[in-house]
Amino acid sequence: MFDMIHEECGLFGVYSNTSANVAADAYLALFALQHRGQESCGIAVNDGGVIRYRKDLGLVPEVFNSEALEKLGKGNIAVGHVRASDSEKPERANAQPLVMRYVKGTLAIGHNGSLVNVSKIKNELEQGGAIFQTSCDAELIAYLIARERLTAGSVEQAVVRAMKKLEGAYSIVLMSPRKLLAARDPMGFRPLCIGELNGQTIFASESCALDTLGAKFVRDVRPGEVVVVDENGLRSFTDHCRPKSAMCIFEHVYFARPDSVIHGTSVHIARQRAGRSLAKEHPVEADLVMGVPDSGLDAALGYAMESGIPYGIGFIKNRYIGRTFIQDSQKLRERSVHIKLNPVSAAVKGKRVVLVDDSIVRGTTSAHIVELLRGAGAKEVHMRISSPPFLNPCYFGTDIDSRKHLIACRMSNEEIRRQIGADSLGYLSLAGLREMVHDSDCGFCDACFTGDYPVDVPQEKKTDKVDQKISQQRG
Amino acid sequence: MFDMIHEECGLFGVYSNTSANVAADAYLALFALQHRGQESCGIAVNDGGVIRYRKDLGLVPEVFNSEALEKLGKGNIAVGHVRASDSEKPERANAQPLVMRYVKGTLAIGHNGSLVNVSKIKNELEQGGAIFQTSCDAELIAYLIARERLTAGSVEQAVVRAMKKLEGAYSIVLMSPRKLLAARDPMGFRPLCIGELNGQTIFASESCALDTLGAKFVRDVRPGEVVVVDENGLRSFTDHCRPKSAMCIFEHVYFARPDSVIHGTSVHIARQRAGRSLAKEHPVEADLVMGVPDSGLDAALGYAMESGIPYGIGFIKNRYIGRTFIQDSQKLRERSVHIKLNPVSAAVKGKRVVLVDDSIVRGTTSAHIVELLRGAGAKEVHMRISSPPFLNPCYFGTDIDSRKHLIACRMSNEEIRRQIGADSLGYLSLAGLREMVHDSDCGFCDACFTGDYPVDVPQEKKTDKVDQKISQQRG
Amino acid sequence: MFDMIHEECGLFGVYSNTSANVAADAYLALFALQHRGQESCGIAVNDGGVIRYRKDLGLVPEVFNSEALEKLGKGNIAVGHVRASDSEKPERANAQPLVMRYVKGTLAIGHNGSLVNVSKIKNELEQGGAIFQTSCDAELIAYLIARERLTAGSVEQAVVRAMKKLEGAYSIVLMSPRKLLAARDPMGFRPLCIGELNGQTIFASESCALDTLGAKFVRDVRPGEVVVVDENGLRSFTDHCRPKSAMCIFEHVYFARPDSVIHGTSVHIARQRAGRSLAKEHPVEADLVMGVPDSGLDAALGYAMESGIPYGIGFIKNRYIGRTFIQDSQKLRERSVHIKLNPVSAAVKGKRVVLVDDSIVRGTTSAHIVELLRGAGAKEVHMRISSPPFLNPCYFGTDIDSRKHLIACRMSNEEIRRQIGADSLGYLSLAGLREMVHDSDCGFCDACFTGDYPVDVPQEKKTDKVDQKISQQRG
Amino acid sequence: MFDMIHEECGLFGVYSNTSANVAADAYLALFALQHRGQESCGIAVNDGGVIRYRKDLGLVPEVFNSEALEKLGKGNIAVGHVRASDSEKPERANAQPLVMRYVKGTLAIGHNGSLVNVSKIKNELEQGGAIFQTSCDAELIAYLIARERLTAGSVEQAVVRAMKKLEGAYSIVLMSPRKLLAARDPMGFRPLCIGELNGQTIFASESCALDTLGAKFVRDVRPGEVVVVDENGLRSFTDHCRPKSAMCIFEHVYFARPDSVIHGTSVHIARQRAGRSLAKEHPVEADLVMGVPDSGLDAALGYAMESGIPYGIGFIKNRYIGRTFIQDSQKLRERSVHIKLNPVSAAVKGKRVVLVDDSIVRGTTSAHIVELLRGAGAKEVHMRISSPPFLNPCYFGTDIDSRKHLIACRMSNEEIRRQIGADSLGYLSLAGLREMVHDSDCGFCDACFTGDYPVDVPQEKKTDKVDQKISQQRG
Repeated sequence: MFDMIHEECGLFGVYSNTSANVAADAYLALFALQHRGQESCGIAVNDGGVIRYRKDLGLVPEVFNSEALEKLGKGNIAVGHVRASDSEKPERANAQPLVMRYVKGTLAIGHNGSLVNVSKIKNELEQGGAIFQTSCDAELIAYLIARERLTAGSVEQAVVRAMKKLEGAYSIVLMSPRKLLAARDPMGFRPLCIGELNGQTIFASESCALDTLGAKFVRDVRPGEVVVVDENGLRSFTDHCRPKSAMCIFEHVYFARPDSVIHGTSVHIARQRAGRSLAKEHPVEADLVMGVPDSGLDAALGYAMESGIPYGIGFIKNRYIGRTFIQDSQKLRERSVHIKLNPVSAAVKGKRVVLVDDSIVRGTTSAHIVELLRGAGAKEVHMRISSPPFLNPCYFGTDIDSRKHLIACRMSNEEIRRQIGADSLGYLSLAGLREMVHDSDCGFCDACFTGDYPVDVPQEKKTDKVDQKISQQRG
Repeated sequence: MFDMIHEECGLFGVYSNTSANVAADAYLALFALQHRGQESCGIAVNDGGVIRYRKDLGLVPEVFNSEALEKLGKGNIAVGHVRASDSEKPERANAQPLVMRYVKGTLAIGHNGSLVNVSKIKNELEQGGAIFQTSCDAELIAYLIARERLTAGSVEQAVVRAMKKLEGAYSIVLMSPRKLLAARDPMGFRPLCIGELNGQTIFASESCALDTLGAKFVRDVRPGEVVVVDENGLRSFTDHCRPKSAMCIFEHVYFARPDSVIHGTSVHIARQRAGRSLAKEHPVEADLVMGVPDSGLDAALGYAMESGIPYGIGFIKNRYIGRTFIQDSQKLRERSVHIKLNPVSAAVKGKRVVLVDDSIVRGTTSAHIVELLRGAGAKEVHMRISSPPFLNPCYFGTDIDSRKHLIACRMSNEEIRRQIGADSLGYLSLAGLREMVHDSDCGFCDACFTGDYPVDVPQEKKTDKVDQKISQQRG
Repeated sequence: MFDMIHEECGLFGVYSNTSANVAADAYLALFALQHRGQESCGIAVNDGGVIRYRKDLGLVPEVFNSEALEKLGKGNIAVGHVRASDSEKPERANAQPLVMRYVKGTLAIGHNGSLVNVSKIKNELEQGGAIFQTSCDAELIAYLIARERLTAGSVEQAVVRAMKKLEGAYSIVLMSPRKLLAARDPMGFRPLCIGELNGQTIFASESCALDTLGAKFVRDVRPGEVVVVDENGLRSFTDHCRPKSAMCIFEHVYFARPDSVIHGTSVHIARQRAGRSLAKEHPVEADLVMGVPDSGLDAALGYAMESGIPYGIGFIKNRYIGRTFIQDSQKLRERSVHIKLNPVSAAVKGKRVVLVDDSIVRGTTSAHIVELLRGAGAKEVHMRISSPPFLNPCYFGTDIDSRKHLIACRMSNEEIRRQIGADSLGYLSLAGLREMVHDSDCGFCDACFTGDYPVDVPQEKKTDKVDQKISQQRG
Repeated sequence: MFDMIHEECGLFGVYSNTSANVAADAYLALFALQHRGQESCGIAVNDGGVIRYRKDLGLVPEVFNSEALEKLGKGNIAVGHVRASDSEKPERANAQPLVMRYVKGTLAIGHNGSLVNVSKIKNELEQGGAIFQTSCDAELIAYLIARERLTAGSVEQAVVRAMKKLEGAYSIVLMSPRKLLAARDPMGFRPLCIGELNGQTIFASESCALDTLGAKFVRDVRPGEVVVVDENGLRSFTDHCRPKSAMCIFEHVYFARPDSVIHGTSVHIARQRAGRSLAKEHPVEADLVMGVPDSGLDAALGYAMESGIPYGIGFIKNRYIGRTFIQDSQKLRERSVHIKLNPVSAAVKGKRVVLVDDSIVRGTTSAHIVELLRGAGAKEVHMRISSPPFLNPCYFGTDIDSRKHLIACRMSNEEIRRQIGADSLGYLSLAGLREMVHDSDCGFCDACFTGDYPVDVPQEKKTDKVDQKISQQRG
């Protein structure tokens, strides 16, 4: 409804030396990771080699009720996944973790990211007689692991070998009959961290999931690293680790939860810092600084701190609007922005307002929001964006895979300002963007802003998804 | 799960001179009023005398999908209702609006509030042969109106007459075959306002519902007033209006949405003002002011403004947790607070924090929250409450009907401070409370803080609900 | 889909001296009575004065699952109900038992039949200030009982008195805080019998429900009788019993289950007897006798026995087609008969077939069925109907309330024969009809065939249902 | 609940030269085939190369509603499937048709039967790097086809080649981007026939599905034959056809619908014939012949015809009991037989009854049924079984894969008679069994009665399913 960018997945894994309620751990963690994917979710539990799983389209509370959790039962390993499709049609077959049998027993795998050599891998596998039942990269990864496992001495070695064939972005969690594994691509596009709770080892896309469980943050999985946990403890394989890494900087701009810490940088503090830089780069005389809830709030706070202009609460976000809001009629479509965000007239009336948001993609939402503020009596609206203009498609796991919808590709800043109806418009500079994550212990991919892709993007990439013509209805 | 106080209802009504998509209006408005009641909801549409309705247990998006809205169809009058039960068991039979036939055709009625002479009315009606199919006050009110209508010349006269027998809190919307009515009890305990949109007349519990529809706020329904709209326009009956009124001040403290304006006072500004007074009354040296989301945020902002201590975002609230969060196991129960609220460690670590919340009822949640902050590294936690100690039960439509759960009845402030583990604790004074709403054009009931009830509360009140022993399962 | 006549209700009640799983009894019994009503169903349990109930639109297995039965819990009294609406729109508000509070506590009531003086009663009650939340006769009956109870010394006396005001058909089961009651109108239009199981007293519309429970059949409730059971045992009130009774003969023709025994007559044997008479009255040379499943099977067997023509199985009925069969498209509508009934070609090919059905209402189904048989190769099709021509509307609880749809009102037998495409057509004579139930210990209403109504049918009756303009959506 | 034998699948396919409502055809046909599988069902539609599908656990009317059918939309090819699992846990992942991509585009495949060399195939595929996401044989078949397609010139050639590796029972329907295929294993264990409707070619497991659609029966697919339909019409490949065939004779005994004709034999007539033989082989003096509904009815009719003893209707089967009948409590378990079948007391009281059923597997149900009849007053009960004693496991697609539950393996006939409480017991002879299908144009597998398996059953077979340890919850 809004022109938002979607992250595609959240991952979780837990290994316990004894049988425990690992399904409950996964359930809690997936709630904490729900912002990373809202189309489908799933949990697989390994109970002494017997795999029980449940996955379906829907939010965590929709897919899992008491009975479902109880049926998953106890076990010593679990993996969980939340997914936000990049296509318009939800596909149940793509819900993860994928659970499958291969030569050495059962695997459950969850993936976050996007491969850039899908067609090449698929083609090679098909030439070997493979059949594909989903449109998930996870299925390809599983196939490659299965093939390598025929000659590799262990599943972890198979993963290490399979990674040679994978190009692009992939964080994965993987459960074999007796082991839990986690891996990140050599650039480390998508986050993945390690936690510990009463002797259990935990993997999660973001540290906020560890907090929810009461687990201790241990460290991030290194870009290129394969980590395996079994009864002998944790072992690390760094064959694919390189000096250079390139984590998606948009995780800090928008995707990640503010209470997460990634590669040493607090997301909340990073955004606040971006707001401060923005205040220095694009100062303005105003009465009030406010953020677009929720992703603009932290940067707005930074802008307010730096500028000395009072921070305000200018919008109330309706928390009950979800995927099921009806838009059948003209009336309902027209009011869809108003029902989500309502300006606090008493706060903005007659005021010169600095409005902070994290990014502008298509520009339509920004225009609506500025209009809402003016309708509520704001005298001036100064739009400040806590990231640079979004200019390039992303091939690494977000759903921006074409320039045609990107307003910044089509218009100058002044044209955008007019289009959204703001009195002024300021974007964060690239320098400000880098300053935002200056305390991180990793490198970053900022290709969406700079066009500087850290890995080659084959020509195939663009057409791959289009010819995937299977569509499954929701049950 | 949290020890929250529950409001019991939200009301909506719309009258159009021509057939229109009034069901969509109700749908939108109920979304905006959902915070006032989350157990059940309903919409009734009057299509030239034919009443179609739908109501059920569940949130607005759960009860209404495209097909349901379409079946309600067009009409020229609609009433809508959201309800939060005061009992632990959801009862489908109590979902409103109640739709019933009486001597003059069909009535649909929705009620917000709580009568204090229920037993007396029930007794009288039963002695006349009445049967009751719900445990709603709305059913009693409908009976009284039906009886009066036998001799009154119009439904509005019947309402005026029936009000003589009603004691306590009631805002109602009522739809007869050709008219839409709204009324408030003489004290005006519960809010109700009038709006206008393209010639349609609208009633809603709060002005935020008008904003959502794009309607213009006209005025509040006066305490004691009966307003009727039909093809001849709007007429007002003020027989029950008195000089003194007593709107529930807790609407400003907690119940209402910050973007609503009630009797001239912006809820957001009122709360900010309470925060300012709190800063004056209970200053402290600190590094950061933060609110408990969402109800403590506005007052925290006021405290920060007044004190000069920086405002911060210290908690992330998980927006996906709802009524269906599973609490079967010990583990899930233990983590239920942590999954709802996660402190932003980077923001509070090593800081002296002023934590602002709207009220303390049982104290258990406050203790959890203080503990969360300390766990996240806060050096000091200074609790500030933007209302006075909650000391007395409410008989006018909230679910606090007994002193036994109120921590302030059992403990001194110092004991409460120790109980919740704060370094200091400060409540807003009664003077501060009054200052909060100084610009309102109505009087207030603050009995929960002062024990000064604006109407007599008969002894019967306390036992009435207990002997209601019918329990209906959810379908 | 088929032009069937619908019965409107099935009743069940159980009284146990000790707390027992009475909900399970009701659940089992309602399964056995499901053929009497498929729109909605419900069970109410009395657990020491606390009433728990569940009712909803849907079949018994749709409304009740394990969790629902468990929530109803144990108790010492239960009443149950299945309902088939006479209108086209299912109304959840009309699901029974109705549970309500009145001056002496809680009542739960279920009704089977149809009053003929609804308007008069409603009018009178409305003039006393009554409000109606359903369009069930049960609500009217409850009101009258509640009024009488104000002066009557007991609920059973109130029922006896209320019956003075009731005209038409009504079998009821009623549960008060400490008693279970059953009553039939003075004509005994609808069946109701008494059973016994391990000291429990049971009421059920048909004896097949007793069989299902393993209960012993005791006797039928007498027309006009009120039976009450409490801790003192069973008492009978016969104030309204008259020498003449008039049970609906269509119960034997079509409504009741063949394994039930009503007033001394086995339904299966009655139908077989009708088939025998039919063979005598309308003999024909043929190779095979077959019935339209399921209601024509017993009479077909009788016809075969009497005529000496072999009995055959000529149709397979698809048991999976239910209320939810989709008829959106032309193709699906066209095939709706074929998917329900498929002729066994090998059985009928080249044969002269006697086809027995219980009645012809509109005639459209009969035409389809004859066509199916001819398509399967039948050489001749001789239609035999095991009841006389259906000529008059029924006001006592079936949904035939107008002559306009009755083919026998518009056409001669020869015209009907041509219309349905049969080679010959024979109806059972009135004498044959009476012979069918010659061993019954009650009188019969055969007004649908004879026009000889056993009670006056006021003019009001016909228009009453039409002006009921409240429509509720299904949840 | 009853000790029934389950068939495992029903197949459907349709090819139209033009775009048509093929989903509606599949929907209708699956209703007619529902008796072959009630765990899950699915339909896939090919709309110019775009495959849309829906499948889920549940009956046809549960999985498909109007919206679902509409979303499947028009197309020129469709395949449909109903499935009854051989395991106790329903697995959504096993619902068919399986839809997958391979080197030449998309395949949708449905399977009926059971391979006997699963482990061997799986092992070989796993050694080639395959991964398995279901426990369906269909997935193995798809893999083999995909591998062969790499070198074969067409999909039909790939199927022909893949069949060289398949051992055991398999009827399949297969949809490629432009073709519809059907094939049966060389023995033709499971039925599959060809129909024609307005130029469309149809494949269905049984001819009753053709009747439902109004299609003309063309012929059975030959054992070992591969049939392909595309824009060039129908072509047949008979590489695997052999002189000997071995269709499952239990299709005639129990699985198939009586209105189907398989390989020239009417199922209804075959069963009637079995009843006649039974009467000759095991005559008895009696008053009434009755069948256990529904599968014993046709043979009972044959027994009655041959013996001259009157045919009767002695049981009423409750049609509303389904998969969801609650058996939580002792009471409900105890009554589960009584609620399904109720004897017609008036028909059997004092009578000497011949009771005909199709088979005895465990014997528990038979004992219950005999007890029911005696309780209803039957003087004598003579059990007649229209097939020989069931002595050997089946490896070709039914769920009898172990001798331990087969009563005839453990007891003599006399012991069984005592166990079930009958006055006499007679089984059909093997000669009678062969006579039953004497007019068929195929050979039969009667291994369940004779132990004479038409193909080798490798030792692996028995353990294969047990180690499949993945369990998926229902969504």
